Amino acid sequence: MRVLFVGDVMGRPGRKLLASMMGRIRSQWGPLDFVVANGENAAAGFGLTAPVAEELFRCGVDVVTGGNHTFDKKEALPLLDRDPRLLRPANYPPGVPGRGLGVYEKNGRRLGVLNLQGRAFQTPIDCPFRTADERLGGIDAPCILVDVHAEATSEKRALALYLDGRVSAVLGTHTHVQTADEEVLPGGTAYLNDVGMTGGHGGVIGMTYASVIPKLLTGVPNKFEVCEDDLRLCAVVLELDDETGRALSIERLNLRPE
Amino acid sequence: MRVLFVGDVMGRPGRKLLASMMGRIRSQWGPLDFVVANGENAAAGFGLTAPVAEELFRCGVDVVTGGNHTFDKKEALPLLDRDPRLLRPANYPPGVPGRGLGVYEKNGRRLGVLNLQGRAFQTPIDCPFRTADERLGGIDAPCILVDVHAEATSEKRALALYLDGRVSAVLGTHTHVQTADEEVLPGGTAYLNDVGMTGGHGGVIGMTYASVIPKLLTGVPNKFEVCEDDLRLCAVVLELDDETGRALSIERLNLRPE
Amino acid sequence: MRVLFVGDVMGRPGRKLLASMMGRIRSQWGPLDFVVANGENAAAGFGLTAPVAEELFRCGVDVVTGGNHTFDKKEALPLLDRDPRLLRPANYPPGVPGRGLGVYEKNGRRLGVLNLQGRAFQTPIDCPFRTADERLGGIDAPCILVDVHAEATSEKRALALYLDGRVSAVLGTHTHVQTADEEVLPGGTAYLNDVGMTGGHGGVIGMTYASVIPKLLTGVPNKFEVCEDDLRLCAVVLELDDETGRALSIERLNLRPE
Amino acid sequence: MRVLFVGDVMGRPGRKLLASMMGRIRSQWGPLDFVVANGENAAAGFGLTAPVAEELFRCGVDVVTGGNHTFDKKEALPLLDRDPRLLRPANYPPGVPGRGLGVYEKNGRRLGVLNLQGRAFQTPIDCPFRTADERLGGIDAPCILVDVHAEATSEKRALALYLDGRVSAVLGTHTHVQTADEEVLPGGTAYLNDVGMTGGHGGVIGMTYASVIPKLLTGVPNKFEVCEDDLRLCAVVLELDDETGRALSIERLNLRPE
Ligand SMILES: [Fe+2]
Ligand SMILES: [Fe+2]
Ligand SMILES: [Fe+2]
Ligand SMILES: [Fe+2]
Ligand SMILES: [Fe+2]
Ligand SMILES: [Fe+2]
Ligand SMILES: [Fe+2]
Ligand SMILES: [Fe+2]
Repeated sequence: MRVLFVGDVMGRPGRKLLASMMGRIRSQWGPLDFVVANGENAAAGFGLTAPVAEELFRCGVDVVTGGNHTFDKKEALPLLDRDPRLLRPANYPPGVPGRGLGVYEKNGRRLGVLNLQGRAFQTPIDCPFRTADERLGGIDAPCILVDVHAEATSEKRALALYLDGRVSAVLGTHTHVQTADEEVLPGGTAYLNDVGMTGGHGGVIGMTYASVIPKLLTGVPNKFEVCEDDLRLCAVVLELDDETGRALSIERLNLRPE
Repeated sequence: MRVLFVGDVMGRPGRKLLASMMGRIRSQWGPLDFVVANGENAAAGFGLTAPVAEELFRCGVDVVTGGNHTFDKKEALPLLDRDPRLLRPANYPPGVPGRGLGVYEKNGRRLGVLNLQGRAFQTPIDCPFRTADERLGGIDAPCILVDVHAEATSEKRALALYLDGRVSAVLGTHTHVQTADEEVLPGGTAYLNDVGMTGGHGGVIGMTYASVIPKLLTGVPNKFEVCEDDLRLCAVVLELDDETGRALSIERLNLRPE
Repeated sequence: MRVLFVGDVMGRPGRKLLASMMGRIRSQWGPLDFVVANGENAAAGFGLTAPVAEELFRCGVDVVTGGNHTFDKKEALPLLDRDPRLLRPANYPPGVPGRGLGVYEKNGRRLGVLNLQGRAFQTPIDCPFRTADERLGGIDAPCILVDVHAEATSEKRALALYLDGRVSAVLGTHTHVQTADEEVLPGGTAYLNDVGMTGGHGGVIGMTYASVIPKLLTGVPNKFEVCEDDLRLCAVVLELDDETGRALSIERLNLRPE
Repeated sequence: MRVLFVGDVMGRPGRKLLASMMGRIRSQWGPLDFVVANGENAAAGFGLTAPVAEELFRCGVDVVTGGNHTFDKKEALPLLDRDPRLLRPANYPPGVPGRGLGVYEKNGRRLGVLNLQGRAFQTPIDCPFRTADERLGGIDAPCILVDVHAEATSEKRALALYLDGRVSAVLGTHTHVQTADEEVLPGGTAYLNDVGMTGGHGGVIGMTYASVIPKLLTGVPNKFEVCEDDLRLCAVVLELDDETGRALSIERLNLRPE
């Protein structure tokens, strides 16, 4: 099967870009069996709302994964409970609304998606390695995609090696800068340290330079504003073996609108 | 001279407590030449506003020091520029509104107050040690009080030893829990690692247990609410030698309303 | 029963001080049913060794608790597995040598000791709140002491409130500065945010000022040296109801040698 | 002029790889006017020694930049003072051995190199933005390369925009994973968020998986070992206008030995 995974969709510019590019991607890379997008920043850079989630689904997104920002807007919490297409990291503790794992079926094909979050330089939550061990056993699908939302390159790389041969792909999100280290690991797992951000790249990881620089220069908090310049869609296209779940290839996308 | 320093005044409960206790403190500890209070949490737990600052001044506070929360409410920024009785940490970088140092005169006595902030586990700003070196030279007053607003016990202790003999007192704030290590250091500087918080101690460092515990159990952000139970005023009374600036004594106060 | 809990014993000066003070403590506070000491810094400031543990036991210590530094010396790992009197935080993940909980019996009295570690500003490990929930059920003793080794005052305070009524005492360690907020909480649990350090207080939380200040001024790592000046033993004496496990009193000790 | 900048050279595998690849790079990309390499991990993954620095120079490296690990081996400190070809981040405070800026001349061409370090999730040192402002004024050379050694993608990106038009290139190091966002910014400054690591990529950012995974699973510190598998040289080739200092192009290199 062919899967498109789209990195952190950033606010309105990210959503509009995604909507406008899906046709081109399908025509260039061929039919997509599943589209998964990280949506933690989809609502004005912070979290999710119901209309924003709908907008992503209308683009053709089948599953929206999350991260630390998923919880920024309180209205997202009931959505997470209600809609199985919305995921948040599975290693948030028991009692947190929503789910971190789903198995999705389309046209007779099944894809498991597991969302995890790192802990280095991040909020202390449950161990992503052990959570992966616990959850993977329960997935009745050979093809499994893992979105690991993490700051430290080391933690994402280690998790990919830890899961190599057990899942189809380990794709990092959160830093908003695409890395260039894609590969299929020896056990058959596709890996990329960070898929990068979908939105305006002209500023600072999705926010305008003008709104970010004061905090860096002064230490005083400031309201960040979503950047609309230099739009780019950052994603990967995965080819997975339907029978074995092994990744056949991983290709990075870093697309500007025409 | 006799100086009262009041630890982080927490929201309305802290302000009301302070107002109600000043008479008792003056009658029990004698006339106070200066009253200094850390006000970073005075406005509903986050920052300062003009009416809140006025309320502190009406209690008899001469100088309001600050910390990381001083900047939480944008309306505080012009106040900091306008009113020399309001300080924020001096080691915030150039360009930050307000000032971190003041020399105050009352009844022929002069007190310098220097506000600093730590960096361990905190926002990266300028070095508090070097900022102290630079600023202390410009103070024309033998008595100088330093409020060092910091998380790490090591950083506060080291700064006290670094400044021993150069200032009258180094008093820590920020952790909201009073420490029991008050002493006059060999060079004549009074020291306490943390003065503690003035407000409701029945919850978690000034916020209600009910509003804090969800974040600790789940990792999901939550709105904190100011605690109103178990009111205590945390402060120190300093006796300083007017000529030499040396501390003669430091006494911790941890007072409940009668 | 009467229990003495001794805060982080710092290197040789801490061990010698403890040895020299036990007689005076027993004569002044009366017979001690159990003595528990945090030993994470007992071996030259970093970790434990077999001879150092023996030295603590010879002082009359019944149980040695730990923290982040417990693992500094590799030779401690087999000790932790072998000797049930040595604890390390219980919320280190499965697979870590040693244990975090023990029930100790002496003269017909039983004391449970649970060691936990915080996560704010510390290594990401398992949740101390849920670990406490899981472990407390298995303790067949009404009197239970919890050593929570943590940096953030908020996390220690919240854990004490979380466990109030379920354990006899929640005592903080790790910051090396004794706090002044001891109390018996409404549910009967004795609490102190940090017991403080046992060793030389003349420097910076147990290390010499001369060895610590270069790192703070320059950012360049430096070898820390154990401080031998201004020796103080920081501890608490707890009176517990043998039947109910409720704390009857908590008294802070901050003792200098005579 | 043409400049090769090589990302963090990791231990012996990294040094050997660099030595073996320089000929191929020169033959493929043409003569190199300057070669700059980040050497903070060159000595067994941690710091520098005199023989290791010599080995880098023998490869054709003209300037060795540094980072947080530069200070890991005490023997590096006098080297930094003595040899102007060795840099460490310029925003370490006054009093730190060595220098953070050099202007190098070869065959009548001059290149300024400025080394900076980030602060987000890193040691608190001086502000890299203001240090850049202060130091750039003193450079008498149109072509200036900045190595910003930092964890957070936001800080590196912001610094690049801050310096756009004032330097020839802002190249990130430290995360050991090459990013895919190279560009020449509007003002003429070449930018890449992270150049990536030169050494064994088969493990976890330069260390073996076997030596890194225990710490991630257990929280217990462990000795890391340099990885020798999947050797790759990560670097960029810059074409700079000698007159204006503007970058004409930036090309990422991610080379395996033949
Ligand atoms: Fe994001
Ligand atoms: Fe994120
Ligand atoms: Fe505060
Ligand atoms: Fe604060
Ligand atoms: Fe300790
Ligand atoms: Fe500790
Ligand atoms: Fe490095
Ligand atoms: Fe580094």
